[in-house]
Amino acid sequence: MKPSSNLKILPLGGYGEVGRNMTALEYDGAIIVIDCGLMFPESDMPGVDLVLPNFQYLVDNVDRLVAYFITHGHEDHHGALPYVLPNAPAPIYATRLTRGLIEVKLKEHKRLAGAKITTIEPGERIQAGPFTVEPFRVAHSIPDAVGFAVETPLGVVIHTGEYKFDLTPVSGEPTDIHRLADYGSRGVLALLSDSTNAERAGHTPSESLVRDALERVFERAEGRVIIATFASNISRVQEVINVAELYGRKVGLVGRSMENNGDMALELGFLTPEPGTLLGIKELDKLPADEVAICCTGSQGEPTSALTRMAEGTHPRVTLRKGDTVVLSATPIPGNEELVHRTLDNLFRLGVDVLYQALMPVHVSGHASREELKLMLRLTRPRYFIPAGGEYRMLVLHGRLAQDLGMAPEDIFIVESGQVVTIDEAGARKEGEIPGGYIFVDGSGVGDVGETVLRERRRLSESGFILVSATLDRSDARFKPQVAISTRGCVFQPGAEDLMEALRLAAIEVLRTSSAGRSGLEDQIVRRLGELVTERLKRRPVIVAQVFLRDGS
Amino acid sequence: MKPSSNLKILPLGGYGEVGRNMTALEYDGAIIVIDCGLMFPESDMPGVDLVLPNFQYLVDNVDRLVAYFITHGHEDHHGALPYVLPNAPAPIYATRLTRGLIEVKLKEHKRLAGAKITTIEPGERIQAGPFTVEPFRVAHSIPDAVGFAVETPLGVVIHTGEYKFDLTPVSGEPTDIHRLADYGSRGVLALLSDSTNAERAGHTPSESLVRDALERVFERAEGRVIIATFASNISRVQEVINVAELYGRKVGLVGRSMENNGDMALELGFLTPEPGTLLGIKELDKLPADEVAICCTGSQGEPTSALTRMAEGTHPRVTLRKGDTVVLSATPIPGNEELVHRTLDNLFRLGVDVLYQALMPVHVSGHASREELKLMLRLTRPRYFIPAGGEYRMLVLHGRLAQDLGMAPEDIFIVESGQVVTIDEAGARKEGEIPGGYIFVDGSGVGDVGETVLRERRRLSESGFILVSATLDRSDARFKPQVAISTRGCVFQPGAEDLMEALRLAAIEVLRTSSAGRSGLEDQIVRRLGELVTERLKRRPVIVAQVFLRDGS
Repeated sequence: MKPSSNLKILPLGGYGEVGRNMTALEYDGAIIVIDCGLMFPESDMPGVDLVLPNFQYLVDNVDRLVAYFITHGHEDHHGALPYVLPNAPAPIYATRLTRGLIEVKLKEHKRLAGAKITTIEPGERIQAGPFTVEPFRVAHSIPDAVGFAVETPLGVVIHTGEYKFDLTPVSGEPTDIHRLADYGSRGVLALLSDSTNAERAGHTPSESLVRDALERVFERAEGRVIIATFASNISRVQEVINVAELYGRKVGLVGRSMENNGDMALELGFLTPEPGTLLGIKELDKLPADEVAICCTGSQGEPTSALTRMAEGTHPRVTLRKGDTVVLSATPIPGNEELVHRTLDNLFRLGVDVLYQALMPVHVSGHASREELKLMLRLTRPRYFIPAGGEYRMLVLHGRLAQDLGMAPEDIFIVESGQVVTIDEAGARKEGEIPGGYIFVDGSGVGDVGETVLRERRRLSESGFILVSATLDRSDARFKPQVAISTRGCVFQPGAEDLMEALRLAAIEVLRTSSAGRSGLEDQIVRRLGELVTERLKRRPVIVAQVFLRDGS
Repeated sequence: MKPSSNLKILPLGGYGEVGRNMTALEYDGAIIVIDCGLMFPESDMPGVDLVLPNFQYLVDNVDRLVAYFITHGHEDHHGALPYVLPNAPAPIYATRLTRGLIEVKLKEHKRLAGAKITTIEPGERIQAGPFTVEPFRVAHSIPDAVGFAVETPLGVVIHTGEYKFDLTPVSGEPTDIHRLADYGSRGVLALLSDSTNAERAGHTPSESLVRDALERVFERAEGRVIIATFASNISRVQEVINVAELYGRKVGLVGRSMENNGDMALELGFLTPEPGTLLGIKELDKLPADEVAICCTGSQGEPTSALTRMAEGTHPRVTLRKGDTVVLSATPIPGNEELVHRTLDNLFRLGVDVLYQALMPVHVSGHASREELKLMLRLTRPRYFIPAGGEYRMLVLHGRLAQDLGMAPEDIFIVESGQVVTIDEAGARKEGEIPGGYIFVDGSGVGDVGETVLRERRRLSESGFILVSATLDRSDARFKPQVAISTRGCVFQPGAEDLMEALRLAAIEVLRTSSAGRSGLEDQIVRRLGELVTERLKRRPVIVAQVFLRDGS
């Protein structure tokens, strides 16, 4: 091994929704990537459709890129592939269900053709450049999830993916404690572990808790039972099917992604209903209400989702009625609270029975809580620890937890987007920098919308705009200056004729009195009208002036 | 009593943040109003500063308006007075602290001069037209809070205001159980009760729980202790003072509203520090860190608040440093989660110790939970029940709770904005309608911004705008058509020269080829450019065209 050889750990998206789900490992020039996720825009990113981690480093080093390894089938772990793959192609390794979900996405983007995907199994060993990668089973809120143990010439790096120590998972198997213990006893160089629930004391309840709650719901429901959850939460869908069969109900899947994922999971055998349990809405409508269950999208109040439209009474195929029971089997992702509450209120207005987390334990987290995080640290006994998968405060809390277990602060690395952890014979340290931050997807544009445009959008959303265009003919006195004014999002025009007229006159006055050239006139109009609007309305709309000037020349 | 006489209960703002806090009672033509609150805009109300209940009914009936009664000093209960009072003037009745906070607000708006305010005490009886109003003590998250028992010719109507049955409140007195029991035994016609925590099982913990947590914080803190809470939460501020004195620390109040409310509460004797406990930042900076405590605003992550700026390192007077302990003594109001989390992450980045609800019980709600709501219903034994103060689902859940206690569904009224509950000898029923909904405050405008403008703002925030202005001189072939294009919030222009040029050429082509008049040309340009942008970017910006047409005429 060349003395120069060292291992680099690069959190490409940094902390938070993105970075936690795209990590590169580099040794001797070879790069592998674990997860390639996207996040959904925050409220201060108006108009943005998706947020990708900054993958520039992979583009710049594509010749040294060996492979992608995906831990599980949630979009925040593989959803960026359709955007990253064309710019930084490499073979993808994933378990069967995860592969199925990746292929659904790639197909949507017409990117499946070029992609080279290999199905992997826990316990298998994949050679990828200087790395030997072994997937190990973890329990999460989607089946077929794994973490990765990466053997490097400097030692084993363990990336947990997202996990909890659920000892009675409803579908799939529990997290492979024995394998983790085995690695721990043989020595682990570095651990990257999911920090999402680092704020939560104790243990995350088992998925079987939800099973019990659902049984109580089905037991007492006299009408239809409608359950909304994440389309990717295949385990939850399977539970609904199990309980429905127990209580003699048929099940319909409603919502595009719920139907797509359902078909794929059926095909791959990750949904195992009895023959005849799954029915289309048409067949369900022929059954008595107490023999019907529906599993649908919309648990986050997404405006066009199935549940949201049912709650608004605008769903084409499902009309809710008194006697129906609606279960929101999810908790709001921070930022979605208002949408979720609005949907709940609309459901209550329809007079249906509504059950949600505040009233009944109809959802459990898929992430390990503090006691489980401790267990992971104890099992693996890492030399170095990098809290992954969480917002900054969660990384810090996770790091402190490791200190409580006796790790030295200098062996714990809180890394944000763009930072690099370098490990060699001398040990581990923060060293080096790479391009960090986000890449925004808006419509068909990837990366063309940045902070500048978002700042403009935020300002427009505050006070709208006023547009002034004018003509001035200094060459011909017969023609008076003409001014046209339009505004949107600033005032309700039918009530603002006076203001509009005042603005028009102010603009004309500038044109009459100023001797400036075109751009000078435009600046003076913008300034003058800005003063007027601020004084009249105490608002600061975007003002744009365009003057056509004809002079003798 | 004229047979025609009846009692009307009008939830002026309807359910939700607003309406819960503005209720009118009308009998024999006379109107009294309980609370006059405002709410802060939701995320789909961009640019809106404040949201008022629709008070049109009071304006239309101002000659019959007898008085305003305010339950406590939170802005969502009195903050609309500066806007409502000028249009619907009437005397205001409030307890001392509440009056103080109202006067601070009215002064800000230069509305104090005209206002007629009377200080009231629990147990006092105020004659207001046909109504006799008796305030009774309730425990809430602000001292000097009351509910109102309103005697009408048809019976007693009880409005609880906002309360919890805190048996060990830290400042102020517990809710007056005896008075409520007394009314209950004499018979209550209708109860309006706070539904905010109708989703929460059990009892809301006593404020003394926070006291214990704060003591633990001060006991172990080695540096300064900075506590952020609502400026109006005088009780919490007093607690901080009490604990600080216990542990030999001086206290500074930071943040405009915290300082204003503090001064006023001191003056009125609702803050009772020992002499010398309260100090300015300058004096505090001279003390050792372990003798300093700061109570500040920003518990909701408000962008310009004290804590937010401390977390960003931009506060002019307080610079946080390692060793400081920051306590977020509040929970995020739904919709504020992202801002609060961002502030927390920034605090962690500064390396200070951060404590918040997820880690320690540093906050308790000021609202009664389900067991307390039951107790209120049992105590008052109302003939009719109107759940107040909560979002729709909470009103329904509160109503169901009353049914669990044996009330008949037809005696429970879930009322939304614009609806009216009418009671006469025949009983109570939903009857009649009044103007409902919201009134938006934006800058100096009250009511001039409505759904239309908000829709425009939301669209602008999605994709921005493109402005095209053009001149066309059909009378003189020497002049070619001229086109100018500006855009904001749509694309990052430095990268979009091609698009801009394509748009310009498309506009010119329309001008060259079309024989339409001015507005026809403008429509054609908007349509053509819209197609182009959608095709190129898959975005739908607002497009405005302004054409100056000179023809022979």
